[in-house]
Amino acid sequence: METINTLFSHRSIRKYQPKQIDAELLKEILTAGTRASTTGNMQVYSIVVTQSDEMKEKLRPCHFNQTMVTEAPVILTFCADFNRFKKWCLQNKAIPGYDNFLSFMTAAIDALLVAQNVCVAAESKGIGICYLGTTIYTAQKIIDILNLPKGVVPITTVTMGYPAETPGLTDRLALDAVVHYETYSDYNESSIRQLYSEKESMPLYQKFVTENGKETLAQVFTDIRYKKSDNEHFSRLLLDVLKQQGFIE
Amino acid sequence: METINTLFSHRSIRKYQPKQIDAELLKEILTAGTRASTTGNMQVYSIVVTQSDEMKEKLRPCHFNQTMVTEAPVILTFCADFNRFKKWCLQNKAIPGYDNFLSFMTAAIDALLVAQNVCVAAESKGIGICYLGTTIYTAQKIIDILNLPKGVVPITTVTMGYPAETPGLTDRLALDAVVHYETYSDYNESSIRQLYSEKESMPLYQKFVTENGKETLAQVFTDIRYKKSDNEHFSRLLLDVLKQQGFIE
Repeated sequence: METINTLFSHRSIRKYQPKQIDAELLKEILTAGTRASTTGNMQVYSIVVTQSDEMKEKLRPCHFNQTMVTEAPVILTFCADFNRFKKWCLQNKAIPGYDNFLSFMTAAIDALLVAQNVCVAAESKGIGICYLGTTIYTAQKIIDILNLPKGVVPITTVTMGYPAETPGLTDRLALDAVVHYETYSDYNESSIRQLYSEKESMPLYQKFVTENGKETLAQVFTDIRYKKSDNEHFSRLLLDVLKQQGFIE
Repeated sequence: METINTLFSHRSIRKYQPKQIDAELLKEILTAGTRASTTGNMQVYSIVVTQSDEMKEKLRPCHFNQTMVTEAPVILTFCADFNRFKKWCLQNKAIPGYDNFLSFMTAAIDALLVAQNVCVAAESKGIGICYLGTTIYTAQKIIDILNLPKGVVPITTVTMGYPAETPGLTDRLALDAVVHYETYSDYNESSIRQLYSEKESMPLYQKFVTENGKETLAQVFTDIRYKKSDNEHFSRLLLDVLKQQGFIE
């Protein structure tokens, strides 16, 4: 498929056929991932591939028990990884200085560019994907399950398989809502109202509001889906993980 | 071009023709970016487009004065952005709880998936790109220049334009070096030696070592390119930025 069409056809796929992904094809997709830009060509990331039922069962609670974690033939956990690079330094008379927050961010950026390349490659082959944002909520559990050493932090997870559903395209804000020219033009009450009005009027979202007994769509996000108390709780856990894995003091 | 070929053809392009990128084409490329997955469809990112010579001159020192920053027709700064979403919440009787580290990471992930989609889209149209890792080193200066409000943090920058060079593909470690099956198989001295030996023997890298008067390639990274003292300095600055922009206490 033409690249631009692949990008414009993206849907998150949450239901998968039992069909496996051929090992050679998976390799090609992962190799395409490694062609993504990486800081100083250090490749400070790792990808953990989960295909066994046993490991999927273990991972599922880390992703709020979503059934796609056990139904998808392949689960990929993308990790910021300075462990490999540091080991290479240490056995080559070089003193690594990567036990810090900047290095964590560098490695996280590497991991995410690879992840997106992998997703685009998969989708171009007719394979569906879904990102799981839960990875940074439950990083400690994932570290234990996947046996990730110090210097490695899971950043995102992707489920992958042949689609058993054909959802429509998801709505997006107009391009003007997210793009600024030259400097950031801050939003005011009127521009916010205008940019979000189409979204708020969509039957899908109006149903969200009613079903959850809320007054506004924004309340569905703040009171139910992405709550302050949860965010603060998971922030503490994630900062503890960064300490334990050696990226902050 | 076939998607997989676009991905496998990626090279970082650092020299550009003076030719401008057509406004409609740029819009199409940015729109392709917005089709990337985003947490809860919140789209918690912004893209700042720099095209004026004046703004490029201002940004250049933030990227260690690399000439491509002023030579490329388009510079894109991808930002984690909870400002827009928070404003929307506040004027819809919803109390946002996104002043925390988890929300920063959520927004940074959003920004990076969009960035990679934009790069892939651009490359499929014959446009070259280069990521600048310096953005997280000099985030405070970029915030001042681009006038980014609280809740917004620049994560990465991409230079973009028609290539005036045709570099070869960059080497990558073998796929086995970065992929683990089921659990992380930690590296030992022998596996590290094996995985990096091809890289170390490449004339390009041997030249790096000689030119810099070093004994090993790893020392070029630890002593010159990505030094402990620099990383620690920029870590402090970046953590200060997260405090100031309201993502950590």
